This record gives sequence, structure tokens and C-alpha cells, in this order.
Amino acid sequence: MVPRYARPDMTAIWEPEAKYRIWFEIEAHATEKLGELGVVPKSAAEALWAWWNTNPEVEVEAIDKIEAVTKHDVIAFLTWVAENVGEEARFMHQGMTSSDVLDTTLAVQLARSADLLLQDLDLLLAAIKRRAEEHKYTPTIGRSHGIHAEPVTFGLKMAEAYAEFSRNRARLVAARDEIATCAISGAVGTFANIDPSVEEHVAEALGLKPEPVSTQVIPRDRHAMFFATLAVIASSIERLSVEVRHLQRTEVLEAEEYFSPGQKGSSAMPHKRNPVLTENLTGLARMVRSYALPAMENVALWHERDISHSSVERFIGPDACITLDFALARLTGVVDKLLVYPERMQKNLDKMGGLVHSQRVLLALTQAGVSREDAYRLVQRNAMKVWESDGTLSLLDLLKADEEVTAALTEEQLEEKFDLDYHFKEVDTIFDRVFD
Amino acid sequence: MVPRYARPDMTAIWEPEAKYRIWFEIEAHATEKLGELGVVPKSAAEALWAWWNTNPEVEVEAIDKIEAVTKHDVIAFLTWVAENVGEEARFMHQGMTSSDVLDTTLAVQLARSADLLLQDLDLLLAAIKRRAEEHKYTPTIGRSHGIHAEPVTFGLKMAEAYAEFSRNRARLVAARDEIATCAISGAVGTFANIDPSVEEHVAEALGLKPEPVSTQVIPRDRHAMFFATLAVIASSIERLSVEVRHLQRTEVLEAEEYFSPGQKGSSAMPHKRNPVLTENLTGLARMVRSYALPAMENVALWHERDISHSSVERFIGPDACITLDFALARLTGVVDKLLVYPERMQKNLDKMGGLVHSQRVLLALTQAGVSREDAYRLVQRNAMKVWESDGTLSLLDLLKADEEVTAALTEEQLEEKFDLDYHFKEVDTIFDRVFD
Amino acid sequence: MVPRYARPDMTAIWEPEAKYRIWFEIEAHATEKLGELGVVPKSAAEALWAWWNTNPEVEVEAIDKIEAVTKHDVIAFLTWVAENVGEEARFMHQGMTSSDVLDTTLAVQLARSADLLLQDLDLLLAAIKRRAEEHKYTPTIGRSHGIHAEPVTFGLKMAEAYAEFSRNRARLVAARDEIATCAISGAVGTFANIDPSVEEHVAEALGLKPEPVSTQVIPRDRHAMFFATLAVIASSIERLSVEVRHLQRTEVLEAEEYFSPGQKGSSAMPHKRNPVLTENLTGLARMVRSYALPAMENVALWHERDISHSSVERFIGPDACITLDFALARLTGVVDKLLVYPERMQKNLDKMGGLVHSQRVLLALTQAGVSREDAYRLVQRNAMKVWESDGTLSLLDLLKADEEVTAALTEEQLEEKFDLDYHFKEVDTIFDRVFD
Amino acid sequence: MVPRYARPDMTAIWEPEAKYRIWFEIEAHATEKLGELGVVPKSAAEALWAWWNTNPEVEVEAIDKIEAVTKHDVIAFLTWVAENVGEEARFMHQGMTSSDVLDTTLAVQLARSADLLLQDLDLLLAAIKRRAEEHKYTPTIGRSHGIHAEPVTFGLKMAEAYAEFSRNRARLVAARDEIATCAISGAVGTFANIDPSVEEHVAEALGLKPEPVSTQVIPRDRHAMFFATLAVIASSIERLSVEVRHLQRTEVLEAEEYFSPGQKGSSAMPHKRNPVLTENLTGLARMVRSYALPAMENVALWHERDISHSSVERFIGPDACITLDFALARLTGVVDKLLVYPERMQKNLDKMGGLVHSQRVLLALTQAGVSREDAYRLVQRNAMKVWESDGTLSLLDLLKADEEVTAALTEEQLEEKFDLDYHFKEVDTIFDRVFD
Repeated sequence: MVPRYARPDMTAIWEPEAKYRIWFEIEAHATEKLGELGVVPKSAAEALWAWWNTNPEVEVEAIDKIEAVTKHDVIAFLTWVAENVGEEARFMHQGMTSSDVLDTTLAVQLARSADLLLQDLDLLLAAIKRRAEEHKYTPTIGRSHGIHAEPVTFGLKMAEAYAEFSRNRARLVAARDEIATCAISGAVGTFANIDPSVEEHVAEALGLKPEPVSTQVIPRDRHAMFFATLAVIASSIERLSVEVRHLQRTEVLEAEEYFSPGQKGSSAMPHKRNPVLTENLTGLARMVRSYALPAMENVALWHERDISHSSVERFIGPDACITLDFALARLTGVVDKLLVYPERMQKNLDKMGGLVHSQRVLLALTQAGVSREDAYRLVQRNAMKVWESDGTLSLLDLLKADEEVTAALTEEQLEEKFDLDYHFKEVDTIFDRVFD
Repeated sequence: MVPRYARPDMTAIWEPEAKYRIWFEIEAHATEKLGELGVVPKSAAEALWAWWNTNPEVEVEAIDKIEAVTKHDVIAFLTWVAENVGEEARFMHQGMTSSDVLDTTLAVQLARSADLLLQDLDLLLAAIKRRAEEHKYTPTIGRSHGIHAEPVTFGLKMAEAYAEFSRNRARLVAARDEIATCAISGAVGTFANIDPSVEEHVAEALGLKPEPVSTQVIPRDRHAMFFATLAVIASSIERLSVEVRHLQRTEVLEAEEYFSPGQKGSSAMPHKRNPVLTENLTGLARMVRSYALPAMENVALWHERDISHSSVERFIGPDACITLDFALARLTGVVDKLLVYPERMQKNLDKMGGLVHSQRVLLALTQAGVSREDAYRLVQRNAMKVWESDGTLSLLDLLKADEEVTAALTEEQLEEKFDLDYHFKEVDTIFDRVFD
Repeated sequence: MVPRYARPDMTAIWEPEAKYRIWFEIEAHATEKLGELGVVPKSAAEALWAWWNTNPEVEVEAIDKIEAVTKHDVIAFLTWVAENVGEEARFMHQGMTSSDVLDTTLAVQLARSADLLLQDLDLLLAAIKRRAEEHKYTPTIGRSHGIHAEPVTFGLKMAEAYAEFSRNRARLVAARDEIATCAISGAVGTFANIDPSVEEHVAEALGLKPEPVSTQVIPRDRHAMFFATLAVIASSIERLSVEVRHLQRTEVLEAEEYFSPGQKGSSAMPHKRNPVLTENLTGLARMVRSYALPAMENVALWHERDISHSSVERFIGPDACITLDFALARLTGVVDKLLVYPERMQKNLDKMGGLVHSQRVLLALTQAGVSREDAYRLVQRNAMKVWESDGTLSLLDLLKADEEVTAALTEEQLEEKFDLDYHFKEVDTIFDRVFD
Repeated sequence: MVPRYARPDMTAIWEPEAKYRIWFEIEAHATEKLGELGVVPKSAAEALWAWWNTNPEVEVEAIDKIEAVTKHDVIAFLTWVAENVGEEARFMHQGMTSSDVLDTTLAVQLARSADLLLQDLDLLLAAIKRRAEEHKYTPTIGRSHGIHAEPVTFGLKMAEAYAEFSRNRARLVAARDEIATCAISGAVGTFANIDPSVEEHVAEALGLKPEPVSTQVIPRDRHAMFFATLAVIASSIERLSVEVRHLQRTEVLEAEEYFSPGQKGSSAMPHKRNPVLTENLTGLARMVRSYALPAMENVALWHERDISHSSVERFIGPDACITLDFALARLTGVVDKLLVYPERMQKNLDKMGGLVHSQRVLLALTQAGVSREDAYRLVQRNAMKVWESDGTLSLLDLLKADEEVTAALTEEQLEEKFDLDYHFKEVDTIFDRVFD
């Protein structure tokens, strides 16, 4: 976790205090059910909750000190609780194993993180939608291979991003579902010393589903899928960031990240306005993507479990969630405040001397009875002249002067093929598909 | 693609002939709709289908030769079709762009591959289920950290695998859904020169959904999610493979891959029976996992598209699908024919002098009023003696001889704690959760 | 391996025939030494070489058929050789284990592949150097963050690439060294049944070094380092490819991939010239990079060896080498034939109204006694006007009209700061550092 | 960075204060040289060093506050220095760009980290060597595929690890060399506003080499190679850790991680001694390995530079170095204190009824004139009986009773083949190769 790429709400989920609070809740809910089942006195849970309701401070340092002796985190925590609650606390953790607590806690943390990320995605989607509607019919050149192709609208670009992040939202809902499970199944998952109803009780109290079959640990394919999903979302962040970076290039300059008046772009070159936010997002996307790998390597634990996944998750649990949260919020800001330059878009669109309309002419020639091969040749020989003139010649003028062309199409017919609105007649159809 | 790790049905999906067949179908269905719309003569599609119904050979080499000249694969294919169908073929591909054909074809190939993989998973699940039921109550030691923990059953191990691969099946259904879309939207996805109804028509004919918004290409976050899902499935294959490899270790030998009578394990050591299939699967899992990365790097294409994804997909499309298909089938064979040795499992279980029952004694002491700390100390001091005796001492005997212990628990109470069946009382509950 | 991304010389190294030829050589050289040591009759090696000198065809299919029965590749091969050579062949492979043959063969294949890749790098370096010298003083704008910064020369861009690929060459030499080792050490690497001098003999005959300590297999950290090195080289390929793609963008168009007269850029848009080679290279780089991962996961084999690395290497051995060979050759072609447009470079350079000289003015103001903060403010306020004018205003004109500026610098002093050659005075120094 | 996996010396390198100290040194050394060149007054550097020699506190918070306003870290730092040094400080940073400072600083941090890692490796190598010598002739079974193969010694296992980490040491020396370069070349690397001799001066003062050609930034292929090297080292850590984990398995138990008397292995199962350190190292290795990927994706920066690498390096710079430092130290502790059980090794060795000697018999039969195929069949049929007896039958006894065998070999000859020392006759040779 890098502090400058972290926001407080997400960070709080991953702090020791939050972790210990979840630990307590798991233990107390479990003790409650064990009390109902008659395994331990009902007074045990009552004592635990009575103390908890005094809203006691979670003394992280005190717990750490005990752990330094016991070298076992859960035992240290139980000892600390016992010191505070007294005698009744000895009934805690009956028939449970540390992983029952640790894995269920991770599930709660990941589920809460997913909830924040879903909120982030909603804000991002809202920002994208607003800009999409604002620029629904703002013409701009569509580019394939970085080369001018045919006209699109800036709103369409935003609609694409909206559709992509809507898919990411659905994926994250599925991924949240994957990891929101509770395991209270004992040393090797057989419920030998704890009734399955305890698991069900704790699961319900924490908003989780019982893990159908655990093996001391919750199976790690769930987590692999979760982090792989975050990695795909990060890849989409990279995509939209790269789009902004391209649009802000000096020669293109169709859009710019918002530039605050006092901001200095470069210590040496005062004129510079750099797309540093989206460059930063490109890097953050690389990091979130990289966390999917160790998560996948964590799946093949030995037999009923080994603990190799744990150190990995101490990194990627917070790092992936915190970084993605930050990145989504930063991207939302970029989209929200993006400076969009329609005049420049039009200027760039006009730069090619009408070459972007070449395909329509090609089709018109074919429909007028010219063979596909001939039509291609006719359009290409004129298109190449325009291309080589760096946009100073006009394709329409050249076509009008090409006798083989005018043998097939009249001037009026040719002119009609250079109408920009022709390209936007299905924008509404596409918007209906994407935003509904 | 490595031929020895490939099976014919999956390989066929990725061969040039299959690709060209899909290309034809897309073009013909599109021409059909264009005919309905009056854009091209209805006779065009009729001519295409008439020829196709003669079941013509797809001349891959002939198409390759044309491509060597045109340096464009779709144009080469269209030329070849035109040579066969004649004049009417010139109406094909009207308003379409190559990617309309290529991307929709990839969608069909991935969807068909997913269908085969789903069949593979069903066969694997069936094999696992059969072994799970067969060994529902076969006792075996549960191990955490590679160290004996408490008893489980071999059926439970299989149930875990069943639950994991059931999740993988659900993930693959979702991933198939992600990539089964059709784009016939023209040069930059605006439908400028082709009516959206053509896309809908082709999609329905091929069992796909129309891509809500495309940009010449189908967005690559879909493919990233698909290959990430295959990578997670591969990780689960690794997990079950590693389990078998562990069980087959000389010192453990609780199970073995089937060993055919004529098979030679080693050119030098004739006694060896090596778990080569599951070791091989471990390696194949690494490969399938690795393909997720370039798939994610493919997401951030430039503007409306660049073609950097294409070379990646020529590798990972076939390689990931073919390798995973092979791996799932191989794993099914391993599970199906796995030699399981219940006697050896029991022997290993007994090896620790009853240490695996220590937790039950610990709980019993606590319930008998001994403090948790004292109970832990009492059990551990006897357990350590057993451990150091390498299983020649018996924990039960030592506990019976420990006066502090017998002060709290009678001999009968102690003996009851060493009952194996106690651990299996919830096996049925777990099976009900997993198999329904 | 994808045939369209493969070249014959590299592919040949990875074909079964080449593999079997190396197998034979290893076995024959080993038998030779065993003969010298008196372990086997000298006639054994003589018989083997006598047959080999008849230049017999390697009957791949025949060997495959035997393997289908024995299910062991080396035994199948030995059987086939015995069928051809007769009785004396039974002395082959004495005290050796299959991995002695397989691992040493892989070392030979990787070393030969590295040799081809080094040749590829030499050709690439030569091409880059030629273009660097050609354009040593061709002015072009340097860009940071995609934004115009200060002038550089196109030759400097090439010099950077040269320096980077020179480093890659040195890395590959080191990586080749890493994997060029020979292990003939028997079943678990103890030389129990084979004298270490056999290993030394075979190593020398094949141009390898003896592996200091092997464990049936050559340790896989060597291979991990090899494939990691290829991955870094691939990343450099991506960098230069991305540079070309940027330069070819419609709005930039300072360079273009060579475009053959008959080539069709798009089935729909006849005017397009797309940087498809470098886009393709970007994708190939992703693939070669991805192979480093499973290679690293291969390192932690179990105990003296497991065979999980083998399936991985059947993929990545040929795929990484063949793809990188193809990519380097393709990149060499791109560099060699790159169309470079100095006029367009100059035009782009001039586009910013002289903003690229802002830093020099800033420094001059500071040196003339203006505080750094004030100097920055003075330059920025004029620079901003130029920026907002889209290059129609001139920074020099504005500065001349700014009284606070002219209070510190004369017109002549200002004009001198806008001299392009000023930026190129150290080009020679840099070239001396890079090319020597 | 996860605090529990961090050691103070390495962490200190990556703290803000250390970074700012390097920044100051770079700026002051550069100003010194600029003074020599007459570009700035000599008094500037004198003033800077005079202040520095008072050993001033680096006020991280004060600098942070300035950065909150300027939104530029280097400008914030320069401002803070100026506040402390006064008027003369304005001559700092003349002709330099932020990246000159940032990239050179990263080089210093990585080089210092590499130095610590080299020390770590030396300590690890010393520990491994000590254990290798201690157990040079401690017999243990060599295992391929997890199956007993032939005898090795525990010292040989250590020798393998020694050789592997020696290679890693050499790789790290090379990787350190790669990144220990200094760039002071100005806005786009042309030295337009700063003399190359400044770079040379600073480089020498800091123990770096001048970067032959930079482009505002030091090229990122250097860093990619550095982090790839750390990833390979991590893979070797995983290998040795997996070995220990295997040896500690209950059924094997040939070695154990040191277990302190007060340590609790499990909150539920008091008898457990888990290899938690090496499991932890397995997870840490996954993390360090994963950082190679974003480092490689950082190579292809746009044109002269974009800043996407920066956020990546804020993570992986400290995280990879700190985690690897911790892991190497932890592994050294594991090796140093590893409990090795020679009796158990011998017991396991004997477990297979002498099957481990089968190859020697095979060879002896061949040398006695039996065909390879027959010899294989004879050995295998007896070996299979031993295998199926679970080690209760003895291979030697069965062979002595097999008439086809005794037709070729006498009892004495057979017995000689079961001599353990036979396998260790080259241990000295191997040790000579590895330790010199």
C-alpha cells in the first residue's frame, strides 16, 4: 500500500482495528450459538456482548505484545479479550480453529471492499453517462491503428466506456458473491467439534453464506477469481486512461485532463500540461493486474491447507482493493472534469481532405454497377493523392475530376457521400442499447 | 499448441477450415438480411447458399495463395468465394469491415470451445462424484501444513474437489456468456453503412447476442475475462493434481495414478511408479494460467482499435482452449482410474499414536472445568512425548497415566475421545450441501 | 508456435529430427568415453558412429510408433537405434538416465536458439545504427507525456534504441551462458553409475560446460533466467514498436512503416496505411513476456526433480525462441525500411509557436538576475497564451512585447534562445558514448 | 510493504528522509560542478554544503506541505532547501529536470538495496555451506517425482542450493550493475542546458556510471532486468522452502524448522509442529515474482518518456527489495537452525526393501551379458513384488531366489550391488566443483 494512492474508507477496512472488530464479532456470534446449543453457558456470550457494548477501545499494541510471546495471532487476541472480559471468555472459540476466524474475517473485508468498489463504479458510470449525453452528437474522428478511419461522436466513445464498466460492475457483483462465505468448520473442516449450525448462525449475522465444504480454510479458487476480476477492471481503467492520453497529445489535443490554475506541469518547461493522472492510472492498472498472479498461485494449497497464501494476502488484500478504489475515484475525477475540445475534434476530422468518406464512395460505386475491384482501385488512386498532399487536396474535388468515377456517379451523388450526419444516424440506437 | 496435449474435437474448432466455414456463414447470413432490406439483390444470398448447399470443399491452400498476393485474409477469402459463386458474390460484405467477420468468428470459436470445456467439466464432475460416494466414509488423515491434523474421509477430499469444479463450471458458463457476442457494425462501429438489423440477424443465426457497442472490434475486456476464467480453472486442476502427487509419494502412498502393466516408469529404475500425469497437469496448468496476462494486456487497444490483440489471440485462442480441454480430460482419467488404498490410509492415520485426537481431549478438559491454558499444557506435554517417540507411544496410554488429566476425566471419558467415527458425523451434512 | 510467426532456421532447431540428432550425439559421445574408460567395449561407439556416418534418415514416425508402446520417449529412441545399429547398441546409455539426454538436449537447443537470436540482434543493431547515422541531425520534437518538450534528433531516438538493444545483446550472451550446461550424472545426479569424465567429454564435444551439481535434472533457475531475459528483450521490442506506431499516427505522421504498392490497408477504407507490423510486434512482445512466468514457476521442482517443467518447456522452448526470432527479424525490417519524413518533423516542431524554447528563456531570465519564481511566472504567462492560440501566436513575439521580460533580456538575447542547433551540440558526445 | 515482512536497514533506504538526502547530494554535487564550469557562482555549492555539514534535520512534513501547494515534489524540495540555505540556493537545479534527480535517486536506492541483498546472499551461502559440510556424507534417499530413486546425501542437497544461490549472487551483481547509472541530461536528454561533465561528476560522487543516452529518464529495460532478477532469486527461495516443507511432512520428517519451546503450533492441536516459516517464504516468493511483470510493462514508455512507470515503482521498488531482504534473512535462519534427523533419513532409505539399488542390478545384469530388455524384465518382476509388499520383502532376497538372475550373477556380486557407499564416491568431486 502506497499512502498517496489510498483513500481513508477503504484503508480503514484493512487496518488492524477493523480486523480485530470482525474477529470479536465472529467469536461472540459463535459463542452465542454455542450457548443456544448448550455447549457453553449462555452467560459466556452475554458477558462478551456486555463488554462490547461498552464500546471498548481495541488495543492493537497490547495485542501485539501478547503475540510477540505466543507467536500466534488468534491466541494473542483471545488472551487480550479474556483479560478484559474475565472468566466467561474461556468459552470462546470452542471447537473452532484460527482459520475459522481468519478466513471469515478476510471474507468480510473483501466483501466490504467490494461494496466500496461497487460504489466507486457507480460514481464512475454516472460521470461517464453525463459526458456521453453531453457529447452524444459531438463529431470526432474514429481511429483504427491510430489512423483516421471514419467519423464517430465523442458520446459514442463514452458509451463504449460505459458499456465496459457496466460489465465490470456485473463481474464485481459476481466476484463479491464468490468470496462472501463463512467457514466455522473446525480443524480440518469436518465440524467434528462444532455444530454446522454455528457456521450458519455466524454467516447470517455477518451477511455471508456458509461455505459448503471447507478444509480449515475457505478454498482459494474463490479469491483467485476475485483478484482476477479486479485485474480485468484495472485493464479497463488502463484502456480509458490510454484513450485520454492519446487525446491530449500535442498534435491531437481533442481533450485534456483538468489543469488547475496554480499547477506546474514541469520544473523546466512552464508551458506543459501533461496527462499525468491518466499516466498514473496506467501504472496503477499494471499493479492491480499483477496481483492476480500470486492469487492464482495460492489455489494449490497442500492437502487440507498450508499457510503460503497468507503472506500473499497480507499484500494483495489491501493493496489490490486500496489501489483499485483510488484508481476508480481518480478516473471518475478525470472523466468528470475532462476538458473536451469539439472545435479541435472538427479540425482534426477535416484534416484528411475528406478521406474519411472514402468507404461510402466505394459502396456507391459498387452499387452503381462498378465491380468491387474497380471501385477499390478508383477510390484508392484518388485517396492516395489526398493522403500524399497532407490534406491540402480534397477527395471530393479529385473524384469530381475523375472521369471513370463520374461515369458512374453524378456530382450530387458524390457530394451526398460526404455528409457527416450520415454516420450518426444510429447513435441513438446504440445509446438505447447501452443506457437503459 | 503442442500436438501431444491436444484432442481432435477441440483442435478442429481452431483449424483454418473451421474458421473459413464460420466466415462464410457470417457473410451469407449478412447478405441474406441485406437482401431483405433491399440493399443488395435477394439473389445474392440465394446464390451463396445454393453453392454452400453443394457442400463444397474449403480450399485452404487456394485461399492462402490469394492472401500471399493481397496480404489481407478476408479479401483473399471473399475473392475465393467469388471465384466459386460468380457474379452474385460481389454483394457480399457490403458495408462490413473485416473485423466484423474476424471478431464474430472468434466469438463463435470461443463459444464452441467453452461448450466442449463444459462437457469436459461435466465428465470430470461425474468422475469425482463417483469416487466421492465410493469413499464417502473411507477414513484418512487430514493434513494442514503437511502435518497430520485430524481425521477426514477420502470422500470429503473428493467433495471439496467437486465443489471447486462446480464453481468453475458456473464461472465458465458466465465467461461463455461474456464472449458470445456478434458485431456487424462497420468500420468504426457506427452502423454508418450497415443496418443494425443485420447484426441482430447474424447474431441470432449463430446463437450469439449483438454486441451493444463495438468499435470495429468487440471490446477485449470480454476476452480478458474469458481467459482469466480459464486460468482459474487451470489453478484448480493444479490443486487436485498436487493432491494426487502428494498422496502418491513413497512415504504416503495412499493413492496412485493408474499404472498400466506394460508401462516403464524409468529407463534406469524399474521399480518406479511416478505420478507423471498429475505432474504433467501441474505444468499444463502453469501454461493456461500464463495466457491470462497477455489477454489482459490486450484490453487497452488504441482508440477505436489497434491490431496488437490479434497475434496474441492466434496463440492463446487455440493454446488455452486446446490445452485446458486436454488437461480436463486427463484429470478426469486420473480421478476415474485412481488407485485408492484405504488400508494405507488407516495405517498412516494410526501412525501418530493417537495425536490426531488431542483436540478432543483439550476440549473435554476445558469442559470439565480445567482452564484453557492448563488444558493446553496438559495435552501438549503428553503429545510431545508421543511425537518424539515417532508414534511408538500412545497418547491415550500417556493421558491415562497423567494424574492431572485423570483428576478431570475418567478412563472411559478419555477412551471415548479417541473414537474415529466422531469425526465423520457431519459427512452427510457436507455431502448434502455439495451434491444436490 | 504459430506458423505465420515462425522462420525456418529457428523452427528447425525445435523439430523432432533435430532433437533426435542431438540425442544420438549425446549417446554416442558418452559411449565413446565409456569405451575409453573400459566400461563398455570400444567397438560400441565405433558401431554407432559408423552407422551415423552413413547419414541415416531419422525416422521420426518409426520412433513415435515404438513410443506408443513403451510410453517412454528415450527408450523408444534407443530401441530404434538398436534396430539400426544392431547388437553393439546395447552398450548405449550405460549408467545414464533419460534426463541426462533430455536436459542436455534442451541446453543445446536453447544455446543454438540463442546463437540465432544473437545474429538477429546484430542485424537489428546494424539497421538501427545505419538509420541513426542517416538521421543524426534530423531535428524532431522530443515529447514527454506525449506533449512537446524540447528538440531532439531522429538519430538520437535511434541511438537510444541502439543502446537498449546493445544491453539486450549483453544480457542474452549471459543468458546463453547460463543454460549451456551438460548433465550426465545419472539417476539422482551422484555419478553413482557413470564417471564424471563422461559428462566432461560430452560437454566439450557439444560446446557446453559441465553442470557443477545436477539432480537428475539441470536446475531450472537457469532456464527461468533465460526466459526472463527473452521477456526483457521482448519488452524492448514493444518499446520501439510503440514509438513507430506513435510516429505513424495521422496527426503526427513523422514516419511510416514501408507500404508496398499493391498492399491493401483495409477492406473498407482504401486510403489507410496502418502500422500493422509494429502493432503485431506489440502483441508478439506480450506473448514472449508471458512465457517468463511459467518458467519461473518451474524452478521449485520437488526434491531431486519432478516432471512438471517438461510440459511447460514443450510450449515455451520453441514458442519463446521462434516468436522472438521472428519478432527481431520483423523489427529489423521495419527499422530498415522505415519511411522517415523530416519535413513533417520540422512542421510539427514549429507547431507550438516556439514553446519548446521556453526553458532556455527561463534559464536566461534567472541568469539575468530574475528570481526563479518570477522567471517561471513570466515565461508561463506568455507560454499559456501561445498554447491557447493553438500555435498561431509566437512565443518570441510575445516575450519581446512583455516589458517585464525585456527589462531583463534584450531582443537579441531573446532571439538567440530560439536557435534550434543549440539543442544538438552534444549529439556527437552521445553518439560517441553509444557507438564505439 | 507489509511491516511484519520488513527489516529496518532495507526499509530505511526507502523512507522519505533517505530519498531527500540523496536528492540533496545530487543537487549539491551538480551545483558544485556547475560552479567549476562557471555556469553558476562557486559560492552556490559552498553555501549548500556548508548548510548540509551542520547536519540539518530533513523536515519531511514541511516538504510535504509545500508539495500540497506546488503539486510538484522536486519543486517543493528545492523550495524547502532555499528556505534553509537562502539566496544562494537559487542556482540549484540549473538546466536540470526533475527526472535527473528522481531517476538517479532511484538508481542509488536500488544499488544500495542490491548491496544489502548481496550481504543477505552471502550470509545465506555461508549457512548453506556449513550445513553442507556438516552433512556431506549423511545418507538420505534421493526422490524423483516424489518417489524414492537412489541414495544421495543431505550435504548434496545443500550443495545444490549453494550452487543455485551462487548463481543468484552473480545475477544480482550483474543486475546491480545494470541499474547503477546516473542521468543528468536535461529535459529530453540532449544536455542542451547542462554540460555532460556535470553528469559525470555526480555519477562519480555517487558511485554510479553515466547513462550513455537518456531521454529525460533512464531507460526502463534496466529496471525490468533488475526486478526480473529478483524474481528469479525468489523462485530459488521457493524451491528450497518447498524442499524443507516436504522434508517436514509427518510421514517423511527428515528435517524440521527449529521449534522454540514456548511456541504454539495450533490453537486447537497442541502436537503440531508446522513448517510455517517456509510456507511463509513460499508466499513471499510469489509476491516478489509478481513484481517482475509490471516492471516489464514499464519498459515501453511513450516517446522520450511518460510517467506511468512512477506509480509502479513506488510499489515495487520498496516492496520487492524489502520483501526479498526479509525472505533471504528468514531463509538463512531456517537453514542455520534446521533440525536434521539422520536416523529418520536412514529409516526412510531402508523402507523400500532395497529397491533403490535396482538400477545397479540392472547394469550388472547387462554387463554380465543379459540383453537390456531381459535385464529390465528380470529386475522389474522382482522389484514389483517388493513394491507391493510395502517394503516387507527384500529385493536382495528375491533376486537371490530368482534363477534367471543367479544364472548371471553370484550372491556376492548381488550383495555388492546393495552397498550404500557406492553412491557417494563422487560426493567429493561434486563438492570440489561447487565450493572452491
